[in-house]
Amino acid sequence: MRIVAVREKTVALAAPLRNASISFAAMTASALAIVTDVIRDGRPVVGLAFDSIGRYGHGGLLRERFLPRLMAAHPDDYADEARGMIDPLKIWSIVMRDEKPGGHGERPGAVGLIDAAVWDLAAKLEQKPLWRLLAERFGDGAAEPHVAVYASGGHYLPGDDLAALQDEMKRYLDQGFRRVKIKIGGTPLDHDRRRIEAALSILGSGAALAVDCNGTFPRERARDTFLAVAPYELAWIEEPVDPLDYALHAELAAAFPTPIGTGENLFSAADARNLLRYGGLRPDRDLLQMDISHSYGIPEYLRILALMEEQGWSRRRCWPHAGHLLALQVVAGLGLGGHEAAPDASSLYGGFAAGVSLADGQITPGDAPGVGIERKDNLYAVFRDLLD
Amino acid sequence: MRIVAVREKTVALAAPLRNASISFAAMTASALAIVTDVIRDGRPVVGLAFDSIGRYGHGGLLRERFLPRLMAAHPDDYADEARGMIDPLKIWSIVMRDEKPGGHGERPGAVGLIDAAVWDLAAKLEQKPLWRLLAERFGDGAAEPHVAVYASGGHYLPGDDLAALQDEMKRYLDQGFRRVKIKIGGTPLDHDRRRIEAALSILGSGAALAVDCNGTFPRERARDTFLAVAPYELAWIEEPVDPLDYALHAELAAAFPTPIGTGENLFSAADARNLLRYGGLRPDRDLLQMDISHSYGIPEYLRILALMEEQGWSRRRCWPHAGHLLALQVVAGLGLGGHEAAPDASSLYGGFAAGVSLADGQITPGDAPGVGIERKDNLYAVFRDLLD
Repeated sequence: MRIVAVREKTVALAAPLRNASISFAAMTASALAIVTDVIRDGRPVVGLAFDSIGRYGHGGLLRERFLPRLMAAHPDDYADEARGMIDPLKIWSIVMRDEKPGGHGERPGAVGLIDAAVWDLAAKLEQKPLWRLLAERFGDGAAEPHVAVYASGGHYLPGDDLAALQDEMKRYLDQGFRRVKIKIGGTPLDHDRRRIEAALSILGSGAALAVDCNGTFPRERARDTFLAVAPYELAWIEEPVDPLDYALHAELAAAFPTPIGTGENLFSAADARNLLRYGGLRPDRDLLQMDISHSYGIPEYLRILALMEEQGWSRRRCWPHAGHLLALQVVAGLGLGGHEAAPDASSLYGGFAAGVSLADGQITPGDAPGVGIERKDNLYAVFRDLLD
Repeated sequence: MRIVAVREKTVALAAPLRNASISFAAMTASALAIVTDVIRDGRPVVGLAFDSIGRYGHGGLLRERFLPRLMAAHPDDYADEARGMIDPLKIWSIVMRDEKPGGHGERPGAVGLIDAAVWDLAAKLEQKPLWRLLAERFGDGAAEPHVAVYASGGHYLPGDDLAALQDEMKRYLDQGFRRVKIKIGGTPLDHDRRRIEAALSILGSGAALAVDCNGTFPRERARDTFLAVAPYELAWIEEPVDPLDYALHAELAAAFPTPIGTGENLFSAADARNLLRYGGLRPDRDLLQMDISHSYGIPEYLRILALMEEQGWSRRRCWPHAGHLLALQVVAGLGLGGHEAAPDASSLYGGFAAGVSLADGQITPGDAPGVGIERKDNLYAVFRDLLD
């Protein structure tokens, strides 16, 4: 089989959201379609992928470097002879040819997007959901799992107030979420404490609350925050400080009992290894949130899991950042702990595919083939002109 | 004053070179011109910059993210009121708006290119060479310095043999170089040892030889290499292992006396800090080679120097990777140790600006305004259609 075309486009997300680090008003994401010469029901089998959020689209890099390498490859170079299909690991090596080590920033997101589309394609060719394909190849091949998700919200909105935050928390509970994360750090600590208390007043003892600092705090603000939130028994504090300041993570982990979640802005196994070596994180409580799509995709994520397990971490401590439809498939297939979810299904990166229902904080991925982009209407609509 | 246009283009470098990590056959670089409304001698004053080499051009990122932010800014946002000109540090903050922490890969090169053009502009507006402007603002403002450079060569060429390598070494000596670096790691260790001996047979005791492994060796190969080259008293071994494997750097530095050069594939102060914290490098001998243009430009490089000096490093231990015309200006202006130079002036990234002469391994930057792109004919030709 042969890849006959690869099409991509950049989509404006234009979300009126803000965290302690950035505004999402000009945020973009890339949509990618890999078209093959395999025809089923009169149409070519196509692999689809949609970017994770927060680091902008990858159109320029895809067009300049990675897609030309893919299109120049001979089908023999990416053939999985045993299965008579495409080998995602060979595609990965093709697109990474002539790339230097180090410097894991945008490149991992571009490569991860290609990788996600290739796995979607592989799963469709095997007429399986991706989670099942991954479970068979890399996991325990078990029965369909229940996957824990948390609602990622509590952004700073224009005209934000505590009542609006409480309404948001009520919506999440009504949707079936039992874990919720809100932003802090965009306002002074006293007001952030009021935000936490307002959220907790709705969530009660039946749901867990985490807070996200988006990697912005200097040392003293981070220490003050851990101290200030200690009474609330938060599920975790996310990205309290610069994601690359491992020594400061270690200091905070040694000083404060609240779990730490971090890793969404480390995009490679080499960076994840440094977090594990130097970050002082605690395998009994902390969360590793590396983003699959932003981090070179599934082959690199498997390398990260291997490094973790060498160091005594359970893969249940992995709660990948965003990635959404892809994250659900990978978390389910590889037996990870759970994943972040954007609760607003009207956004391209929010909600779940049709047929995936949320109850008591958990979802099940279902048994439809591939990743599921075709089963989220507003997202699939983005791809229509790529597929005509 | 106001920025009225920003123009960029991607240039194919297409060098028939190979190191242990990649081929440069498909390498690209970006050329950038920032045009102002200041008219001198009937023409607008323009800031120019040309990419460093090895990580591809930055056109996609420039067009998608960074240049739109620059063009959307109001001139008041980037005004240096005291000097009546553009403030490079304000430009830096404008283009980095809404960028998350962590993930320093391609973004630093795109921002570094903008920054380089802005400093070229600032120096031209002050009618000074950039080195002098930097020395006045951030250095000791001293008299024109002599800058040590080394010839970066000994790539694996098609049809490569030891005689060709020796001819290359002779040319470098004839050009005036007294430090030379060659590639190793692209062939088995025995053959690399013969390459080293062939080079040394030409260089003799009057010149120093370094070797570059391009970040590719696994642990055992790195240890074997340090052992094998110990008798040759090399000036340094560059990037022996993955640039992010700090623990392995520390192991090698503790075990072997040969100096280590590294840092060209770390693109931020956050990453440089981790190298300094965990890499076990020795301030009395090792070389820090962070690339100015690839690492968010001069503002970030000043942050890196501050981190180094906090930890007892002299800025004389800095030998920036490539960057060439820019590197010379920054090394001279900030009093660094020296810099890498590509000796082939017929390449866009090789040689020096007109008026810069090499003798006994040193060059002086001269007193012409700006960075000097206008004074390297083949490089300036790339910009002609950006300036019409």
